[in-house]
Amino acid sequence: MSDTDKRFLALALSLGRRGQGNTWPNPAVGCVIVRDGRIVGRGWTAPGGRPHAEPQALAQAGPLARGATAYVSLEPCAHHGQTPPCAEALIAAGITRVVAPLADTDPRVSGRGFEILRAAGVEVSTGLLAEQAAHDHAGFFLRAGQQTRPWLTLKLASSFDGRIATATGESQWITAPPARRMVHALRARHDAVMVGAGTARVDDPSLTVRDMGVTRQPLRIVISRRLDLPLSGQLARTANEVPVWICHGPNTDPSLTSAWTGLGARLIPCALNGRQVDPTSALHELGRLGLTRIFCEGGSTLAASLLHADLVDELIGFTAGLAIGAEGLPAIGALGLAHLPEAPRFALSETRALGPDIMHRWLRVPA
Amino acid sequence: MSDTDKRFLALALSLGRRGQGNTWPNPAVGCVIVRDGRIVGRGWTAPGGRPHAEPQALAQAGPLARGATAYVSLEPCAHHGQTPPCAEALIAAGITRVVAPLADTDPRVSGRGFEILRAAGVEVSTGLLAEQAAHDHAGFFLRAGQQTRPWLTLKLASSFDGRIATATGESQWITAPPARRMVHALRARHDAVMVGAGTARVDDPSLTVRDMGVTRQPLRIVISRRLDLPLSGQLARTANEVPVWICHGPNTDPSLTSAWTGLGARLIPCALNGRQVDPTSALHELGRLGLTRIFCEGGSTLAASLLHADLVDELIGFTAGLAIGAEGLPAIGALGLAHLPEAPRFALSETRALGPDIMHRWLRVPA
Ligand SMILES: NC(=O)c1ccc[n+]([C@@H]2O[C@H](COP(=O)([O-])OP(=O)(O)OC[C@H]3O[C@@H](n4cnc5c(N)ncnc54)[C@H](OP(=O)(O)O)[C@@H]3O)[C@@H](O)[C@H]2O)c1
Ligand SMILES: NC(=O)c1ccc[n+]([C@@H]2O[C@H](COP(=O)([O-])OP(=O)(O)OC[C@H]3O[C@@H](n4cnc5c(N)ncnc54)[C@H](OP(=O)(O)O)[C@@H]3O)[C@@H](O)[C@H]2O)c1
Repeated sequence: MSDTDKRFLALALSLGRRGQGNTWPNPAVGCVIVRDGRIVGRGWTAPGGRPHAEPQALAQAGPLARGATAYVSLEPCAHHGQTPPCAEALIAAGITRVVAPLADTDPRVSGRGFEILRAAGVEVSTGLLAEQAAHDHAGFFLRAGQQTRPWLTLKLASSFDGRIATATGESQWITAPPARRMVHALRARHDAVMVGAGTARVDDPSLTVRDMGVTRQPLRIVISRRLDLPLSGQLARTANEVPVWICHGPNTDPSLTSAWTGLGARLIPCALNGRQVDPTSALHELGRLGLTRIFCEGGSTLAASLLHADLVDELIGFTAGLAIGAEGLPAIGALGLAHLPEAPRFALSETRALGPDIMHRWLRVPA
Repeated sequence: MSDTDKRFLALALSLGRRGQGNTWPNPAVGCVIVRDGRIVGRGWTAPGGRPHAEPQALAQAGPLARGATAYVSLEPCAHHGQTPPCAEALIAAGITRVVAPLADTDPRVSGRGFEILRAAGVEVSTGLLAEQAAHDHAGFFLRAGQQTRPWLTLKLASSFDGRIATATGESQWITAPPARRMVHALRARHDAVMVGAGTARVDDPSLTVRDMGVTRQPLRIVISRRLDLPLSGQLARTANEVPVWICHGPNTDPSLTSAWTGLGARLIPCALNGRQVDPTSALHELGRLGLTRIFCEGGSTLAASLLHADLVDELIGFTAGLAIGAEGLPAIGALGLAHLPEAPRFALSETRALGPDIMHRWLRVPA
């Protein structure tokens, strides 16, 4: 494999990422068809998951696909669903070489897409950019794997002393417009945005993606044991435009149940853990319903309970150049640590300036 | 002025910075003598402040100084002290051009060094790299100016949720060795390291620079109203090797006063503000004693009181990839803010990875 391969495969991966947030429960895949060093077709999984990336790229390439190389960000599918498998479509179009970073983990596909291609005489190269691809498809793999839950990104936007609001609850605005725009871009790349009931009550957020030209909004999730949420707030008023899902505990008040159902919200019963919705149970239910990537925006109580349950895969911090002081609301609530070595740990993946603020990204260190 | 000028002047500035922490109450200046594009002399202010940078660089250059250009990180001095003024030494050596970023603010020098040079027919260019030079000499200028206090750098080493210790006081180690080495390098570039009495009591720190090959240690300052500090701790045991200065309030216990004096500590009486040593008074006293650059390492109570009094010029954060949770000790104590717009603000100057942690630097936004 060459630098050229790496360049085209990187392009396929970046096309694939365009679909993130829009393709669940399917993976967001990208495909580039290259003939004699020239790109003749490009595609990425369409909103809702179909058509797949490969048939779109093949359609663009037309007869030029014959003898060409296909760069695909994930193993082409091998199972007959609503459409014929992509592995067969690539063969039928005359593709002679396929470059893909890694195998699908879906048991209906895993390795079989590559087998079908090889059996038809197509040269298959794998392994290039495998780490980046594993990260891009992490939500899809996590849900399909043993954990059967979505990938969870936790956002913390705080003062440099780690406060997300003043003592009186003022949190608008700690960070500046560039960081807030980035938050909207990140929302758009996830299947759903999640907050705790406290944030829904205090901030009355809409949690939609604004000024990004998106056509498909991520759905909104609130974790609320008793559905004790403002019935005339933004989420309530817009629940039949952009879906609102509420993860709640047992024995909710029937009048609240019917009010929220009437407003168009989807109610998701979850197990309790002490007096809170069990976060592991909530994530399993959300995975069962097809979600692969969730963007949690707090508040501090929910952030602490997700960290405590070891459910945070990626942490994205936005830190502003201001001090709020110890009376402010902490970014992360009580964790009940006895000793420092027990603290949940994350590995740095990036830090950079974002307007007057900094953005830093960290990935979970597997225990 | 040319790119070549910029390159040599930047070198003079970086040589000057080598003296930071060692030259107080004098500025840390660097000088490069260039003849026909070749460096023929280099110098920087010696420990203690003498000899100055220029005579050292001139001595290296010898007869080659005749007709050469001198790049100096600050206006050459003009007053007769223990040695003849540097402006005259440059003239005597035959220097024909001097490039310096800016004028000294010392009333005995300000502009007069340049005047003496110009009067002798030396070409003087100023303005290049003035912003960097103003930052390098900020402590010297601040002390010499109306504020008559040293520059204060506040360090915060915290978890990503802004905690500097667990509830039980464990703070070793939140950050990793690369960040801790950087802290030692920063200590070495300041005249003194400062902590609050709480940190001295809980951590029993030595506050020395280790493993950096330094010959001159920054002095150690503790802010302690009543001298209520461990008499057998590290600071007490080493007070006659590396100076310990204690800023205290009125009416201290005479037995503690004589115990600390006996150990070799210098006691600095300061005004009170409520029940604490007034931080503005403490910084004025320290400025009066000659200090130009102080590196404060916390704890949270002292950090809050310095921020509240608007005395923090630079803030350096080290953030580790771990969560401690809301029971942990906050990086900054109570600030008593009523509203978000009152929060002290800082402008980002740099963020970068430092081993597994991040380092971010912020400068005070003048009110
Ligand atoms: N700067 C920022 O980026 C930012 C972002 C978000 C929030 N905030 C601020 O954060 C504040 C709200 O934070 P918060 O800590 O009070 O509330 P929160 O974390 O948003 O919500 C906590 C509430 O969620 C419910 N809940 C149910 N199961 C839970 C579980 N497993 N874990 C956690 N919570 C669960 C509980 O309410 P029920 O008993 O009703 O179920 C709980 O009281 C607001 O002031 C807001 O402005 C700031
Ligand atoms: N991770 C880190 O980088 C780091 C760094 C430093 C400290 N720490 C942790 O911080 C903890 C100590 O913090 P802390 O907040 O308790 O103590 P602190 O800020 O170090 O010291 C506070 C004490 O200093 C004295 N003081 C006098 N005048 C003051 C003024 N104007 N402002 C503030 N303090 C004044 C008071 O004691 P008197 O009444 O005796 O005068 C006060 O109780 C320790 O657990 C330590 O491990 C961590």
